[in-house]
Amino acid sequence: MLRQKLKPFIPILEWLPTYKRAQLPGDLLAGIIVAIVLIPQSMAYAMVAGLPPQVGLYASVLPLLFYSLLGSSRTMAVGPVGLMSLMTGSLLAEMGINDTAQLLSIAVLLALLSGFTLLFMRLLKLGSVINFLSHPVISGFTSAAAILIMFSQLKHLFGIEIPSELGVIEKIGFTFSNSDQINATTLVIGLLSIVFLILIRSPLANKLAIKAGGILGKSAPLVVVVTGIFFTATFQLAESYGVAIVGAIPAGLPELKIPAFDQSLWQQILPGAMLIAVVGFLESISVAKALASRRREKIDANQELLALGASNISSAFSGGYPVAGGLGRSMVNFSSGANTPLASIITALLLAFALICLTPYLYNLPRAVLSAIIIVAVSALIDLETFKKAWRYDRADAASFLATFFAVLIIGIELGILLGAIISISLYLHRSSQPHIAVVGRIAGSEHFRNIDRHDVETHPHILALRIDENLYFANTNYLEDKIMGMIVDDSQIKELILICSAINFIDTSALDSLEMTIDRLRNAGVTVHLAEVKGPVMDKLKKSHFLAQLGEGKVFLSTHDAFTELG
Amino acid sequence: MLRQKLKPFIPILEWLPTYKRAQLPGDLLAGIIVAIVLIPQSMAYAMVAGLPPQVGLYASVLPLLFYSLLGSSRTMAVGPVGLMSLMTGSLLAEMGINDTAQLLSIAVLLALLSGFTLLFMRLLKLGSVINFLSHPVISGFTSAAAILIMFSQLKHLFGIEIPSELGVIEKIGFTFSNSDQINATTLVIGLLSIVFLILIRSPLANKLAIKAGGILGKSAPLVVVVTGIFFTATFQLAESYGVAIVGAIPAGLPELKIPAFDQSLWQQILPGAMLIAVVGFLESISVAKALASRRREKIDANQELLALGASNISSAFSGGYPVAGGLGRSMVNFSSGANTPLASIITALLLAFALICLTPYLYNLPRAVLSAIIIVAVSALIDLETFKKAWRYDRADAASFLATFFAVLIIGIELGILLGAIISISLYLHRSSQPHIAVVGRIAGSEHFRNIDRHDVETHPHILALRIDENLYFANTNYLEDKIMGMIVDDSQIKELILICSAINFIDTSALDSLEMTIDRLRNAGVTVHLAEVKGPVMDKLKKSHFLAQLGEGKVFLSTHDAFTELG
Repeated sequence: MLRQKLKPFIPILEWLPTYKRAQLPGDLLAGIIVAIVLIPQSMAYAMVAGLPPQVGLYASVLPLLFYSLLGSSRTMAVGPVGLMSLMTGSLLAEMGINDTAQLLSIAVLLALLSGFTLLFMRLLKLGSVINFLSHPVISGFTSAAAILIMFSQLKHLFGIEIPSELGVIEKIGFTFSNSDQINATTLVIGLLSIVFLILIRSPLANKLAIKAGGILGKSAPLVVVVTGIFFTATFQLAESYGVAIVGAIPAGLPELKIPAFDQSLWQQILPGAMLIAVVGFLESISVAKALASRRREKIDANQELLALGASNISSAFSGGYPVAGGLGRSMVNFSSGANTPLASIITALLLAFALICLTPYLYNLPRAVLSAIIIVAVSALIDLETFKKAWRYDRADAASFLATFFAVLIIGIELGILLGAIISISLYLHRSSQPHIAVVGRIAGSEHFRNIDRHDVETHPHILALRIDENLYFANTNYLEDKIMGMIVDDSQIKELILICSAINFIDTSALDSLEMTIDRLRNAGVTVHLAEVKGPVMDKLKKSHFLAQLGEGKVFLSTHDAFTELG
Repeated sequence: MLRQKLKPFIPILEWLPTYKRAQLPGDLLAGIIVAIVLIPQSMAYAMVAGLPPQVGLYASVLPLLFYSLLGSSRTMAVGPVGLMSLMTGSLLAEMGINDTAQLLSIAVLLALLSGFTLLFMRLLKLGSVINFLSHPVISGFTSAAAILIMFSQLKHLFGIEIPSELGVIEKIGFTFSNSDQINATTLVIGLLSIVFLILIRSPLANKLAIKAGGILGKSAPLVVVVTGIFFTATFQLAESYGVAIVGAIPAGLPELKIPAFDQSLWQQILPGAMLIAVVGFLESISVAKALASRRREKIDANQELLALGASNISSAFSGGYPVAGGLGRSMVNFSSGANTPLASIITALLLAFALICLTPYLYNLPRAVLSAIIIVAVSALIDLETFKKAWRYDRADAASFLATFFAVLIIGIELGILLGAIISISLYLHRSSQPHIAVVGRIAGSEHFRNIDRHDVETHPHILALRIDENLYFANTNYLEDKIMGMIVDDSQIKELILICSAINFIDTSALDSLEMTIDRLRNAGVTVHLAEVKGPVMDKLKKSHFLAQLGEGKVFLSTHDAFTELG
């Protein structure tokens, strides 16, 4: 049956036929609450990207629907998020375009290319690309991005025009030296909104409180929006005090159209779109995993590539910009009782309703209110906990947090995350290139062998038993060669060398070369090399080479104990 | 004493005071033979770099002397080599300069910057940078470079002007389509020289034969040079038949002068110079190691950085170009009986003598003879053995050989070697990101635990004993999380999970996070996690974190046997 065949690819075929009536109240409530959160938030994020507010709303309808059909997470809510908005905004700013129509067409193209990138990654089953960044690097990256997003909102908060290409420090300097242009009314509106949002959030700081807070806490953004509109309209703050407002938003659903295709533009923005796709995937998968672990669901990284790819392409066709799974709104969805993706379908329908009927009421919404919502939302992303933990546990990991954090702040987002990945990988290679080598001996009366430096053990003067605590591969062959030769040169009594391979999971071609050479050199020095505790998969591969013949008089023992007994 | 303090940095202080008279004959003979090899070879390599022949001779005097003072290898001979010449030539060709004086000043600056790069690497103790390329990648790189070098000589061999920017295939095509311009006399001289050099080499193909071949084999290049000069001069081949000759070489030692410093030029060629430095270091260290292993000497990678840095800087000050340790001439030096670096000092003095007295005699040397010498010399670098071995042992390594080989041939040297490094590293990360996980049981009547799929072992239905055969780090946390949760979900009988850590050498911060989360999730599912056989250094670090508290009721056992006995 076709439906059976499609099931693995279209999760809705899995949950919809078995939908229970009892699941509806939770889905309905969650759908409504997320819509309340999402309407102001999506407009705010569009502002971060330097796009008109309705673009954020457009990016919240079809992508949400498509994800609910295809996604493997049952409760993740997809739409405009901080990171993607920041990256889109920085890419648009770099291109130096001021014409709104052109900005829109590039944003749409970015979503399209990001979507295709994700689908392409699905084809190549590259879901494992998420494995190339360490937690400290991801955390350093999002923390710095949160700060960049907050600073991008200074201009709306202070009501002055700050050039978006300025760095974080320069923005502060610029604000100070142009303090005479600050719009006091705007600033008051923004600060009051921030204070209100923080106060409402404060008892919700921990996970428990999110559940207890209920609708009141979650609708706080709606409260500041309504209050902001009310005061601005009543006291004509825009006309009399120059408060920047959202202004006219075209009513109605986004027009569905095929994105314009311009080859030179396409080539110019492709690298940026690919990076946006990878970062969005990274963010979404970590959100999805965090939610799944609470309900024992399974997240399939390759299915997520498909779902997010489709979401981004649908965003492009409906005049949106790149989207991903957002942590905040997904948590709201989850904790408001969402049981199935039906909640997201309800949210999407409500957003469509808002686009059709509510846009005239948003006219007087001060931009400073939206900025306040963003600043409070992204402040949760600044993750000092991870840094502190890494600092205690592993200084090198803490250093990679700091390096990524400052690189993103100072050099920029793209180079920053690239540098982070390079640091993660170099650090790992460096670690495994100087492996721990233990000289071991037998614990008296047992068959156990332990490090002679840490335990009181039996040894034989003519036997050197070495346990190499690392895979043998190109990055550590030189180190090991030198180390082993050094030990043999230092002690002329040694006649038998036992290499204990219990911690060796593979030996690559470079290491095989080096091992053969070392065995050869040791033979000339009168030392026979034996192996012990070689793992099954390693042995299978060694049998394919001439290595075992090269061992000569050396033997392969099942256990170190056997080797010690026979050679001792 | 100052000398005692300097000893580790200036190896000559080590060997000269203890020099024995019996060592002199070997050093003298080897010094003379290497000079005989080096005179034509160094001129030939200068041609590969697109520089006048005397530059090769200049690069063979001071660099050789400086290396003999500072190098940690006693028998390596430093000077112009194929790879460095090819890279220098490709960089000069890219810059599109035709003026010889300007070419010379850039070549000198390249040597200077390469030297400084090496000294800078010495300061940072980056000797371990050699660990970042696997043997198959290095071998794929040198094989492709050898082919590029051979094809760069086609123009001298056929006596037609082939644009050096053409690719390998295009060069063949160009030669065919311009076959009417081929200079038959030049081609005959070149081919005869190649045939002679190959015939002389053939019995020397294996290492034994090098010793047996003696002076005759080694002086074959000198024989073709002298014969070539004789015939060209006698029959006026240059004037009457248009055979391209070396022409006038300025007599005398190179003028010592400070290289001109041009900042914009400096910035332009720095990346190239850095790559040349790293590749030269790579080549030299593998030559030095190959020689050292035959006499149980020790090569110090950081000392080599110092010695090669000084050699390159001295090359710059004496009008040369980037140098490195050459495999061929070092083997000749070694097998001719060189005992100490005195052999190299003798070679350098003979080269200086040649520059002062012999240059007029080289006027009639056909360039095709030099090309023949190069083609035969570099053909030994095409290393199909490594490829075949890798193909049998590890297909992924064989694929990285092929990828690097074709990337260097088609895309170019710089990008090719970069791609090779990326492939090596990605391959390793990919391997360790999907580690082998074995479910183990006890071999009846013993304390040994083995894979249940490979051995007949005892198990308990409520205990799952897992041995993870890899370090836990960011690239494999996702995989392991999914794998372990999957096993628990599949078998509801399991109440105790023993993670056997005998193959785990470190756990990074990302993996610690993930492990804590997994333990938490398993606790909710009614499964207690225990650890067994945790290595000392890993345990030391875990004690610094909150991890052990997070284990809850789980315990840390010294051995899997203990865990099995207590929980069984």
